[in-house]
Amino acid sequence: MTKKDLTDCYNRIAPYIHNTPVLTSSLVNQAVGANVYFKCENFQKTGAYKMRGATNAILQLTEEQRSKGVVTHSSGNFAQALSKAAQNLNVKATIVMPSNSPIAKKNGVVTYGGTILECEPTIEARQGLADKIVAKTGATFIHPSNDINVILGQGTACYELLKEYPDLEIVACPVGGGGLIAGSVLAAKYLSDDCKVIGGEPFEADDAYRSLISGQIETNDTANTIADGLRTQLGHHNFPIIKNHVDRIIRVTEEEIIEAMRFIWERMKIIIEPSSAVTFAAVLKDKAQLKGQKIGIIISGGNVDVNNLPFNI
Amino acid sequence: MTKKDLTDCYNRIAPYIHNTPVLTSSLVNQAVGANVYFKCENFQKTGAYKMRGATNAILQLTEEQRSKGVVTHSSGNFAQALSKAAQNLNVKATIVMPSNSPIAKKNGVVTYGGTILECEPTIEARQGLADKIVAKTGATFIHPSNDINVILGQGTACYELLKEYPDLEIVACPVGGGGLIAGSVLAAKYLSDDCKVIGGEPFEADDAYRSLISGQIETNDTANTIADGLRTQLGHHNFPIIKNHVDRIIRVTEEEIIEAMRFIWERMKIIIEPSSAVTFAAVLKDKAQLKGQKIGIIISGGNVDVNNLPFNI
Repeated sequence: MTKKDLTDCYNRIAPYIHNTPVLTSSLVNQAVGANVYFKCENFQKTGAYKMRGATNAILQLTEEQRSKGVVTHSSGNFAQALSKAAQNLNVKATIVMPSNSPIAKKNGVVTYGGTILECEPTIEARQGLADKIVAKTGATFIHPSNDINVILGQGTACYELLKEYPDLEIVACPVGGGGLIAGSVLAAKYLSDDCKVIGGEPFEADDAYRSLISGQIETNDTANTIADGLRTQLGHHNFPIIKNHVDRIIRVTEEEIIEAMRFIWERMKIIIEPSSAVTFAAVLKDKAQLKGQKIGIIISGGNVDVNNLPFNI
Repeated sequence: MTKKDLTDCYNRIAPYIHNTPVLTSSLVNQAVGANVYFKCENFQKTGAYKMRGATNAILQLTEEQRSKGVVTHSSGNFAQALSKAAQNLNVKATIVMPSNSPIAKKNGVVTYGGTILECEPTIEARQGLADKIVAKTGATFIHPSNDINVILGQGTACYELLKEYPDLEIVACPVGGGGLIAGSVLAAKYLSDDCKVIGGEPFEADDAYRSLISGQIETNDTANTIADGLRTQLGHHNFPIIKNHVDRIIRVTEEEIIEAMRFIWERMKIIIEPSSAVTFAAVLKDKAQLKGQKIGIIISGGNVDVNNLPFNI
């Protein structure tokens, strides 16, 4: 991939996405001891950066492919993003969701025009049902994170951030399936001479941290983290990019995630989801190394169930 | 008061406040059937518009007055605002707070450098202790809403909004003590030929609604509303302004307040306090009258206790 691929991707998806605002807070800067710039993808359409990659993936399909629809499996933000991106482009989207997905997520998919097919809550059942739909309808399967067009699309958040703040020394983002951080390192590489990319990851799902050490994709036996967007695994498309370019990954505890989320809600008055709080928690944890630097943090999303918050515990 | 008074006030306080952003949302516009512009005072310093009036009131004091400090009674946003405004100007602030004030509010005052004196939770005890401090120290009492300099300061939120969006047809804000809506009608009168100001008020504390009907200040026997910022009474400084210029006040139920708050949190991903949700609930309730108009809504603040939210009921 080249800088032109990323620029072309950005120009392609720009009519369908928000160029989200960048917020700052003197209280946050005091707490970190650095200058922090929050790229607010919680204000993105469907409430998360996933809209970017989903839109790019569909726009790269031929007319014939589009006429047969798209399919993915996701219980999270990509389900809503692909539904909305498909709706915008008059494409049919079928979303395979585990039967135990939260009602709010299912309703989100329906609101954005997606068709839900439920399966048992295992990765095998999810992929199996998606494969069946592809075989039966000729729809194109689009993976939520392990897909080059999705990775490029997700990279446009960091692209916008570095266009607006070209002198950032660090960009931090969460690591789940790896699409966002892989896209972000491409953007940093193409737009900056020396901007490093760091990742935040829960101890409870630290496959990327361990994969960077071992040099190969490691898996999670369990993923008991409140950061529901980060319970997934790296893939063979994004891991090589991550391995070659990510500076470091900082792991955080569940308590650190909740406290970071509370801090942003209370001080900045914006709603961020736990997966985004992971990144801020990682930056706080790493503040000795980050002192005095200019740090961009990609706030990945703001989709939470307000009936079920972690604070009063 | 004149337009020059308001402009002078704005220029005086500008170095100490944020010119807060104005946000829009296509989902909100669909729900209301109009074009809505949210003036986000939840992003103001100390999390509420009160910082404006508090700053103006202190800046209008002489050096000698400032040297003796300021005092107010408040269990809410004005307590924090006066503390912070005083801290910015090296003035001592004493805050009389009812003994049952939330710990979060007390901690906010302490964080911003204010000195708390506790009293019994009655309006008489509050005023009595404040009077004692004035008599003993020579400090200047600053009322949270019934003070001309405070009213002018609060009007600068609407002033900024109309400078940015001069063609608004309606500005909506909540009605509690009356400082914000009185300041807003002054701004609308000075900056626009035909912008109307409407108010939102809980049924449970509808003294302003009843006062507009009777033509004199009515009181609340009880104020059992979740909108903690609106449990207060109109005053003799702001009521004449409100009476002469406010177009109408729309009352909303507790359920409507909570649903409006949920809508903004979930769809716009910003944290607004119940008193601000009152205004959006009022606009939703009045949408038949407001259809197709350009409406500014002043989001008054974002100070909530995340440990104690109304959603999971």
